[in-house]
Amino acid sequence: MRILGIDPGVATIGFGLIEASRAQVRLQRYGVITTPAGLPLSTRLYQISQDLSQLLETFQPEETAVEELFFSKNITTGIAVAHGRGVILLELERAGIPVFEFTPMQVKQAVAGYGGADKKQVMLMTQRLLKMKTIPRPDDAADALAIAICHGRSATSLLNTERVFDPKRYDTR
Amino acid sequence: MRILGIDPGVATIGFGLIEASRAQVRLQRYGVITTPAGLPLSTRLYQISQDLSQLLETFQPEETAVEELFFSKNITTGIAVAHGRGVILLELERAGIPVFEFTPMQVKQAVAGYGGADKKQVMLMTQRLLKMKTIPRPDDAADALAIAICHGRSATSLLNTERVFDPKRYDTR
Repeated sequence: MRILGIDPGVATIGFGLIEASRAQVRLQRYGVITTPAGLPLSTRLYQISQDLSQLLETFQPEETAVEELFFSKNITTGIAVAHGRGVILLELERAGIPVFEFTPMQVKQAVAGYGGADKKQVMLMTQRLLKMKTIPRPDDAADALAIAICHGRSATSLLNTERVFDPKRYDTR
Repeated sequence: MRILGIDPGVATIGFGLIEASRAQVRLQRYGVITTPAGLPLSTRLYQISQDLSQLLETFQPEETAVEELFFSKNITTGIAVAHGRGVILLELERAGIPVFEFTPMQVKQAVAGYGGADKKQVMLMTQRLLKMKTIPRPDDAADALAIAICHGRSATSLLNTERVFDPKRYDTR
């Protein structure tokens, strides 16, 4: 399954495309969308929507995973990032691609094995799982790959009872 | 000048259309866009973008005014509203309509005469300035009309030196 992970923002939006099966995750593409600080917010949001549409057209992901926002420290930054995240969710919906949302703790749990893992541990595990020679750069792209892996593992897991034991799907009356 | 004021949100987005001249502001239309709480955020954001596009098509505003967000109390609400605000700014930019942003204090100052005015005073002044029989309902629509008035007054004011004394405009060499 082709999964596009997205680390939301306004100045820098990380993206990471992987191919996930039950056995493994494989790296396809990663990088960042950036917008210049000097432009009005509405113009930057428009650039994000255009660039993301282009990415979706090129990558043709089957599902997408976007990190949820938690801001206890800097509300101003949180508000700005949420503007960008709104535009990202909109464009994914417009493109008709299913969106899955994960908390930072869920991403850490899925990638590094426990929810209290630090950023460095998550990046090292992301590198190892995707068989990369170095830690992916920049950080936003590494975060996006980790989010994609998180969704890949939950979407392809046998432990995901919702998928395996969906009564509607197996109702044969 | 036809001005569309917008009070941003996800559950309820207020809008108010006025015609502003130097002498007065006149009411044209007002109301709210709403989205159901049960739907995924991405779907609600898509509905907002569709409904707002439709409004812009119908109303053909020349300029728009959107309130800025200040959240010190409830970060969670602020983050959600900012998702909606991002989508609103995007659609205004997509439609090519100039966007002006005002703080709550600027709106109070422009409508009620001072930045410390309470909500009720702003609503009463909005009603009076637009020659309405009652205070506009719901609150989000009243807020949107106040934002439109705020921009109308600043955009048509002789005190707006940027417009009147723009040296580039009057340089006749």
